Amino acid sequence: MSEYTAHDASGPSVGIVTKQSYTFAEKPAEALVLESGTRLGPVTVAYETYGELSPTRDNVVLIHHALSGDCHAAGYYSKADTKPGWWETMVGPGKGIDTDHYFVVSTSILGSCGGTTGPCSTNPATGKPYGLDFPVVTVGDMVEVQKKLLDHLRIERLLAVVGGSLGGMQALEWSLRFPDRVGGVIALATTMRHSALAIAFNEIARQAIMADPNWNNGHYYDGEKPATGLAVARMIGHVTYLSDVALRRKFGRRLQGKEDFSFQFDDIDFQVESYLRHQGSKFVERFDANSFLYVTKAADYFDLERRAEADSAVKVFAGAKASFLVVSFTSDWLYPTYQSRELVRALKKNNRDVSFCEIKADAGHDAFLIPNQRLSRLIANFLERVRREQSK
Amino acid sequence: MSEYTAHDASGPSVGIVTKQSYTFAEKPAEALVLESGTRLGPVTVAYETYGELSPTRDNVVLIHHALSGDCHAAGYYSKADTKPGWWETMVGPGKGIDTDHYFVVSTSILGSCGGTTGPCSTNPATGKPYGLDFPVVTVGDMVEVQKKLLDHLRIERLLAVVGGSLGGMQALEWSLRFPDRVGGVIALATTMRHSALAIAFNEIARQAIMADPNWNNGHYYDGEKPATGLAVARMIGHVTYLSDVALRRKFGRRLQGKEDFSFQFDDIDFQVESYLRHQGSKFVERFDANSFLYVTKAADYFDLERRAEADSAVKVFAGAKASFLVVSFTSDWLYPTYQSRELVRALKKNNRDVSFCEIKADAGHDAFLIPNQRLSRLIANFLERVRREQSK
Repeated sequence: MSEYTAHDASGPSVGIVTKQSYTFAEKPAEALVLESGTRLGPVTVAYETYGELSPTRDNVVLIHHALSGDCHAAGYYSKADTKPGWWETMVGPGKGIDTDHYFVVSTSILGSCGGTTGPCSTNPATGKPYGLDFPVVTVGDMVEVQKKLLDHLRIERLLAVVGGSLGGMQALEWSLRFPDRVGGVIALATTMRHSALAIAFNEIARQAIMADPNWNNGHYYDGEKPATGLAVARMIGHVTYLSDVALRRKFGRRLQGKEDFSFQFDDIDFQVESYLRHQGSKFVERFDANSFLYVTKAADYFDLERRAEADSAVKVFAGAKASFLVVSFTSDWLYPTYQSRELVRALKKNNRDVSFCEIKADAGHDAFLIPNQRLSRLIANFLERVRREQSK
Repeated sequence: MSEYTAHDASGPSVGIVTKQSYTFAEKPAEALVLESGTRLGPVTVAYETYGELSPTRDNVVLIHHALSGDCHAAGYYSKADTKPGWWETMVGPGKGIDTDHYFVVSTSILGSCGGTTGPCSTNPATGKPYGLDFPVVTVGDMVEVQKKLLDHLRIERLLAVVGGSLGGMQALEWSLRFPDRVGGVIALATTMRHSALAIAFNEIARQAIMADPNWNNGHYYDGEKPATGLAVARMIGHVTYLSDVALRRKFGRRLQGKEDFSFQFDDIDFQVESYLRHQGSKFVERFDANSFLYVTKAADYFDLERRAEADSAVKVFAGAKASFLVVSFTSDWLYPTYQSRELVRALKKNNRDVSFCEIKADAGHDAFLIPNQRLSRLIANFLERVRREQSK
């Protein structure tokens, strides 16, 4: 166990961690062939690891982040660092994903801006950032990149893959693309086909970015960033991750530092407005607008039924061999429970081993990111069970 | 009954109608004093009427439109006009609001762009459009303007006031501001206090408008309009009026005129994307961006509990004398049924006569605008009952 004392109250931490990277496809002949048919290379994948790899290399858990995350899932980058990784409450010694037992690998996804190749990376053909010349990527492409990294790390088999939202889509994709390499799949607050409602919100967010003149068709890396467009996009996304009841509890109709309405537009009336604006401007500092376009597009394209070339969900998981844990949250209206139930039905029709749990939570879609003892226990027990069965 | 044949299949129409207007507060001394304390004048109110005023002037139904509507609730402007008023399916001979029996008055609300004074009207102080110099108005101010029109028309008492969404807020406001002048209140898909979620979406939409450089702090009337910002704002609003199930049924994941994904950003992949873009660009042609700011702000400020200066809902309707019909729709997540129930509870605590119905409907918040026999019957029966009780 780490001697490092975490800054938050979520218990012991994996401590100081280092972001690493691996680059492949440096020669044109080795380029990664994407689902679109486009060839991409070189490809750098940023990653972090927590815990110790067992001598038999059989204790690996791969974590997938969601839309706005990156490979920094746990720990701190320095003693002075006050902000831990995005899943600090789940990943660490004695936690749901227990780094005393498991070797955790966490990567930044293809197309994003967390160190893995994406639209802000240098296009070797021009020596400048790709911008919109970066090819549109899919969840399948993200998973291929992760698989290349695991090959490099000489990890043949994953004890489990785990993720929420877009991360859950990657976990599901793993079970079909590399069925012999995955023991367990943990899919949280996710879906097997992105809904029209989810596509609608993503499309509006993309339109908000593209409406910003600074976006300049994706060429803004040497000038002003499309900050206002990206802020609006983030606000749209952010409100869909919350819930009516969470917003009521957190803000209600409380005014922001005033007793009465301002009767003005250059002032802020409600706390919820102030909160959203803050979320928007904070996001702009850390996220790339083009990446937002690419990552939301990948989510919109995600549709396991379509890939199965079947007109029903029956055959979707015919090739899968893993055990599954599917978890939804009562107040998640972006990926509602009925979508998890559809996933569970499709798995059962293919005789997959699947556990399903709907957790009562007010926090909306974001519930999977919030400390929840029940979720931690579910994940810990599932990992333990997969490990037991694997060692039989 | 009108001899005019309606263009749609919703039955007979009120036929050709004419938009009228009335201007008051032309002298500074007669200015309308708004809730903010600001004085406004002159004020023009645009309106239409359908049906015949009874000799005893006791058959008047006042209709309130929602955010993006105007006074043109029913009928056509000419024989060549193919687009009827926004509530054509509800208002007309033999319909839910039966113009064979009732004299219907429908006004454009203060602050909007449907002919009633708003930010695009000429500011008498400058001879130019008000822009952001227009004062922030409230639902109460809207209702005051309607009352001035009714005084002008010598209509002392309303058989009923009726509206959905922001229109429902106006109806509720009438019952408290002028309790002796309203017999019945029909409040559809509405709330007595705008929720944090609803404020959040409105705020994001406003931010989208203000992020458009053409918005230019509200001064755009002699130049390029903030069309992209307003389109994004409309798309945000529009998707909140629909529902997950309605979007699934209407669009699902169907592609727009293609067999496979485009893998591009300058193309449209999904039908739902095409639909939203169409909604956005259509709206820009008919609506003023500044009005969008003012009207959403009025909705956000709406809070009957706050006005009651009470910390519970008990006293809110203490002054009301009308009978109430409250209707919610199962798939409306912007003004969910629990908010209608809160309203009903507050009314009952004050011993008001109230009927409540939750209608099963997939269409989301927009359900109140969509032909629904049950809704039409509920409204017709309620009006009939109020009329009977009034004539006792």
